[in-house]
Amino acid sequence: MARTIQSLERAAAMLRLLAGGERRLGLSDVASSLGLAKGTAHGILRTLQQEGFVEQDPTSGRYQLGAELLRLGNSFLDVHELRARALVWADDLARSSGESVYLGVLHQQGVLVIHHVFRPDDSRQVLEVGAMQPLHSTALGKVLSAYDPVAHSEVADAEREAFTAKTVTGSAEFESVLDLTRARGWASDVEETWAGVASVAAPIHDRRRTPVGAVGITGAVERVCEDGELRAQLVAAVRDCARAVSRDLGAGRF
Amino acid sequence: MARTIQSLERAAAMLRLLAGGERRLGLSDVASSLGLAKGTAHGILRTLQQEGFVEQDPTSGRYQLGAELLRLGNSFLDVHELRARALVWADDLARSSGESVYLGVLHQQGVLVIHHVFRPDDSRQVLEVGAMQPLHSTALGKVLSAYDPVAHSEVADAEREAFTAKTVTGSAEFESVLDLTRARGWASDVEETWAGVASVAAPIHDRRRTPVGAVGITGAVERVCEDGELRAQLVAAVRDCARAVSRDLGAGRF
Repeated sequence: MARTIQSLERAAAMLRLLAGGERRLGLSDVASSLGLAKGTAHGILRTLQQEGFVEQDPTSGRYQLGAELLRLGNSFLDVHELRARALVWADDLARSSGESVYLGVLHQQGVLVIHHVFRPDDSRQVLEVGAMQPLHSTALGKVLSAYDPVAHSEVADAEREAFTAKTVTGSAEFESVLDLTRARGWASDVEETWAGVASVAAPIHDRRRTPVGAVGITGAVERVCEDGELRAQLVAAVRDCARAVSRDLGAGRF
Repeated sequence: MARTIQSLERAAAMLRLLAGGERRLGLSDVASSLGLAKGTAHGILRTLQQEGFVEQDPTSGRYQLGAELLRLGNSFLDVHELRARALVWADDLARSSGESVYLGVLHQQGVLVIHHVFRPDDSRQVLEVGAMQPLHSTALGKVLSAYDPVAHSEVADAEREAFTAKTVTGSAEFESVLDLTRARGWASDVEETWAGVASVAAPIHDRRRTPVGAVGITGAVERVCEDGELRAQLVAAVRDCARAVSRDLGAGRF
């Protein structure tokens, strides 16, 4: 069994550090945050810079993430089978629902958005491909937590932050949300993550019946809900989409 | 001066390998492509996998790029000042021109697309953020080659592939294209990269008058050109946009 390589683990920790919080850090900040000697940190940063993973501002000398990460992230998307199969179905869902569509997969302790179709109107919208969503409060995250045992163990161990007054944070209460999700085959998030925003999502399975992701719509609570409940028509559209993508991935109908 | 770290350089080479060509490779393919012993390659792949930079297909055992790259690529975009300043202007340009808008920066031997606004109609379009374009044949690439000395040295050394019969490949001819670009302040690509597609781009400068990127529109040659020439109205809209972004970055007007 091959061992892992310390300098690589340290480099990955530096990239994670630069991806969160301050995002532009000097050599001393990087070294002290990771408990490394300055010389050690400099050697790693220098190599990361040479390879395009890190850039250094010529004026301030501070480091930030580099362009090569964007190029590689795009290559990751190109080769992602679930995303490729879901593209057309997600477009159709945005059209039929009139709302924005998100496709998410489990990554680390959250949901990574791997596809995002804008709401089909002329409003200005920000692309969220590559953004993370919490597992415990979003519709995508609840679906993954309910169907994927790995996601479930991540979310069970984590602290569930209350983003709004409606976020479910207690363990027992959260488990019954997951039971409900499994019982009806979809999950919702009515102002549990963002005030004024509601979403609904359903699971995608592959040919081995493995839950590989979730697809859902997100929109203003006034449009997506009626009398405090998700509109049945939108729930049906999301579940149709999830079934269509699953079949495209080879999942059986029964 | 700190030395670079060999295991990191090898890891970066593996990610580049997985980003091009086959994209799903077994351990032996990776090891032989990079001239490494299998054990060495396995140690690096294992660490990359543990950090989320590489994923292994459970059935075939083949490796492909991992989701962490998408998350980090998104963080790179979040912190990119040029992109942040250009967002609104690029939207306006898409609206006024009716065509798709691209914002590009020099990366390695090409143009990296860091923002893409879809053509404002209801057609299905594929997002190209993170994709690369050639320096010698595209409007964005010619602008960077004309204004950025680093881009110029990259393109001068490279072999200029003829993508269509109209691609300019000869050195002297290409240099006069760059002279023309500098003289008029913008560059065009009329079916020199893709048959049927034309584009026009202009340079963006920052507060130190450094050329930091290029912005342009791309569309069907029938719409973008008239009598074989770029429509003056579109050229003006692109140059207006480039000037507005430059001013937003602190570039002086004179």
